[in-house]
Amino acid sequence: MAGDAGRTGRPALAVVGATGAVGAVMLQILSQRADIWGEIRLIASPRSAGRRLAVRGEEVEVVALTEEAFDGIDVALFDVPDEVAERWAPVAAAKGVVVVDNSGAFRMDPDVPLVVPEVNPHAVRMRRRGIVANPSCTTLSMIVALGSLHAEFGLRELVVSAYLAASGAGRAGVTTLRQQLSLVAGTELGTSPGDVRRAVGDRTGPFPEPVVLNVVPWAGTPREDGWSSEEMKVRGETRKILGLPELPVAVTCVRVPVVTAHALTVHARFEGEVTVDKAREILATAPGVVLFDNPEAGEFPTPADVVGTDPTWVGRVRRALDDPTALELFVCGDNLRKGSALNTAQIAELVAADLA
Amino acid sequence: MAGDAGRTGRPALAVVGATGAVGAVMLQILSQRADIWGEIRLIASPRSAGRRLAVRGEEVEVVALTEEAFDGIDVALFDVPDEVAERWAPVAAAKGVVVVDNSGAFRMDPDVPLVVPEVNPHAVRMRRRGIVANPSCTTLSMIVALGSLHAEFGLRELVVSAYLAASGAGRAGVTTLRQQLSLVAGTELGTSPGDVRRAVGDRTGPFPEPVVLNVVPWAGTPREDGWSSEEMKVRGETRKILGLPELPVAVTCVRVPVVTAHALTVHARFEGEVTVDKAREILATAPGVVLFDNPEAGEFPTPADVVGTDPTWVGRVRRALDDPTALELFVCGDNLRKGSALNTAQIAELVAADLA
Ligand SMILES: NC(=O)c1ccc[n+]([C@@H]2O[C@H](COP(=O)([O-])OP(=O)(O)OC[C@H]3O[C@@H](n4cnc5c(N)ncnc54)[C@H](OP(=O)(O)O)[C@@H]3O)[C@@H](O)[C@H]2O)c1
Ligand SMILES: NC(=O)c1ccc[n+]([C@@H]2O[C@H](COP(=O)([O-])OP(=O)(O)OC[C@H]3O[C@@H](n4cnc5c(N)ncnc54)[C@H](OP(=O)(O)O)[C@@H]3O)[C@@H](O)[C@H]2O)c1
Repeated sequence: MAGDAGRTGRPALAVVGATGAVGAVMLQILSQRADIWGEIRLIASPRSAGRRLAVRGEEVEVVALTEEAFDGIDVALFDVPDEVAERWAPVAAAKGVVVVDNSGAFRMDPDVPLVVPEVNPHAVRMRRRGIVANPSCTTLSMIVALGSLHAEFGLRELVVSAYLAASGAGRAGVTTLRQQLSLVAGTELGTSPGDVRRAVGDRTGPFPEPVVLNVVPWAGTPREDGWSSEEMKVRGETRKILGLPELPVAVTCVRVPVVTAHALTVHARFEGEVTVDKAREILATAPGVVLFDNPEAGEFPTPADVVGTDPTWVGRVRRALDDPTALELFVCGDNLRKGSALNTAQIAELVAADLA
Repeated sequence: MAGDAGRTGRPALAVVGATGAVGAVMLQILSQRADIWGEIRLIASPRSAGRRLAVRGEEVEVVALTEEAFDGIDVALFDVPDEVAERWAPVAAAKGVVVVDNSGAFRMDPDVPLVVPEVNPHAVRMRRRGIVANPSCTTLSMIVALGSLHAEFGLRELVVSAYLAASGAGRAGVTTLRQQLSLVAGTELGTSPGDVRRAVGDRTGPFPEPVVLNVVPWAGTPREDGWSSEEMKVRGETRKILGLPELPVAVTCVRVPVVTAHALTVHARFEGEVTVDKAREILATAPGVVLFDNPEAGEFPTPADVVGTDPTWVGRVRRALDDPTALELFVCGDNLRKGSALNTAQIAELVAADLA
C-alpha cells in the first residue's frame, strides 16, 4: 500500500475528475469525514494539470489522467464523463486499483455491483471487474428512503416524477442557470409565448430549452419509445439495487430552475396494506433518512433547504386515498452529496474496510 | 335583456373581479373572441371602483360589487376569492343572472355543474342553482387531454404530479416570484442550506417557502391526512367532470418558479391495452389539444413556450414499459387562459347560446 509520511499504512485514494462539479463536493466531503485515507491524489484532464486544490486543509496539485497516475493507488473515485470512465476505469482496475465509478458507464454491467451503503452494502464485494458503480443522482435521491420502506412492506410498483436541479448537468448546468437568471431578473418575461426563449437565445448550455422561469421535461439522451436516458437509468438502477428485476417503474424526469438538490414525487405500491404511522416510524429511524413532515406547521423538505446536507429528506407522507397499499412521498436530496460524491465516498470506505 | 346601443339584443355580461390576475386575462379574451356580448360591465371591490380598464378596445369604468351592480345583467363571470363568490354568486343568481364561477366555492356542489366545454358541455344545463362552476386551473391544465383519452380507452386510475406556476396564486404570486428573482440574480445563492430562505426573508408572499431557485411541495390549505386542498380539488373535480365518482386519483402539487402555465406529469391507467399510436392519433385530433411530441427533435411543451396560448399541450407520450394499459404524458397549459379565464368564457358562451 502507498501512503504519505504521516498516514503510512492507510490506503491511497485517487479522485479522478477532481475539478468538476462532483469533484469539488468530493474534496469537501473527504475533508469532513473520518480520515481513513493515506495519500489523496487529484486527477483531471491535462487541461487542469498543475492546478492546486484544497483537500483536508492542504493544497494538492492536480495531475493529468494517465496510466502512471494510478501508481501506488488503492482506490480510485471516478467523477468524469461516461466515455472517460469507460476508457480509464479498466486501465486502473488492471493495475489492481479498486474503481468506484460515478459515471453511467458500468452501472448496468452484471459484473459490476451498484451500491448504496444503506441498502445493499454487501454487494460491494461482488466486484468481479474491480469496479463498483455508484447510482445516478436521481436514483440516489430516493433510494435510501424507498429501500427502508421496501424492507418492511415489499415494493410492488413505482411511479416517479423528478424535479431535477441544474447541477445534475454538471458545472455547465449551474453556470447556465445563473446566467439565465440574470437575463430575466427585473423583466416582465414569462407572460407571452417564447419570450423567455428569445431572451435566453442560444445560452441554453447543456439544456434543450431555457430552464429559468421554466421546467423542461427532458434530461439525457433519447432511448427507445420516447423515454430519456435519465428515466431509463432510474428504472434499471432501482430494480438492480433493490434486487427486484421485474419491478414496474414509470419515471418522468423534468429539469427545474434549482441550483442543487433533486426532488421527486413518489407513488409507491406495496405487497399489502400500509399505514402512514408505520411508514413514518420506518422513515424516522432509517439511517440516512430525515422525516420532515408536518405541512400544517409548514414542514416539508424543499431543495433550497436541503442543499449541502447529507441525508435523504422525506415529507408529504400520505396513503393513497383510493388504494390502501400505496404511499405518496415527496423526497429531496442533494444530488452532489448523497446523490453523488457522498455515496461514492461511502462506497470507497466500505472497500477500504474490506482491503484492511 | 339589457345591452348597449350598438349591441342591442345581445346578452349583457358582468366580469366580477375584473382587476385580478384572472380578470385581466378575461378582458383580453373577451376582446379576442367572437363578440357575442352586449354590455360588458366590470365589477371589483370598492377599492377599485372608478378605475378604467380596456376591453374590446373601449375604456370601461369599474364599479363596486353590490346587488345593484347586477341590474340588467344576463351572465356574470366571477373571478374573485372563494368567500366573495360564496356570498355574492347567490345574490346575482337570485336576480336571474346566470353565474359562471371561477372560484372553489361551488365546484363540488351536486346542484352546480362543473363544466369543460370540450368534455362535458351538456352539463351546463343542469344549473339548478343558477350557477355553473369552472374547474380549478390544475384540473383544467390536463382534463381536456385526459377526457379525449378517456372517451376512447376508459380511464381506470390516475397518478399526477403538478408543476404549478406562481400566477396560480394570483397577482401576489407573480409579484412575489419577480421580487425573489431580483434578490437572487447575480448571487451564488442556492448552494448551502437555507441560503435562499435567508435572502428572501419574509418576502414569501402567498407561498409557504421561497419559490425562486426552489420547488415547494405545497399549494392551498391543509385537508385530512396530509393532503392539500389543491390536491383534493384535482381528485374531486376530475371524478365529477369525467363522471367517474370512484376513479382512483393520487396527486401531488408542487409550486415551481414559473410565472404562468402549469405543467403536469400524468400516469394514466386504462381499461385495457393502449397503444402510443392510437393515443397520439386521439390527441392530435382532439379539439383544444395540441400534440407536440418529438423529443429527438427537441419537441416537447414547456410552460415558457405555451404561456399565452389557448390549448392544452401534450408531449412525452409513452406507454408504461411494465404495463400495457398505462400511458405517461407531460401536459402543459396556461393556467390563466384555458386554466381559468378562457374556460369560463367558453362556458359563458354555452350559456348565452342557451339563453338565445
Ligand atoms: N452532477 C451530478 O449531479 C452527478 C451526479 C451523479 C453522477 N454524476 C456523474 O459524475 C461525472 C462527473 O459529473 P460532473 O457533474 O462533476 O461533471 P463536470 O462538472 O463537467 O466535471 C467533469 C470532470 O471530468 C474531468 N474530465 C473531463 N474530460 C476528461 C478527460 N478526458 N480526462 C480526464 N478528466 C476529464 C474534468 O476535468 P477538467 O476540469 O480538467 O476538464 C472534470 O473534473 C459524470 O459521469 C456524471 O454523469 C454527476
Ligand atoms: N390564478 C389562477 O390561476 C386561477 C385559476 C383558476 C381559478 N382561480 C380563481 O379565480 C379567482 C380569482 O383569482 P385571481 O388569481 O385573479 O386573484 P387576484 O389576482 O387576487 O384577484 C382577485 C380579484 O377579486 C376582487 N375582489 C377581492 N375581494 C373582493 C371583494 N370583497 N369584493 C369584490 N371583489 C373583490 C379583486 O378586486 P380588487 O382589485 O378591487 O381587490 C380582484 O379583482 C379565485 O377564486 C381563484 O381561486 C384562479
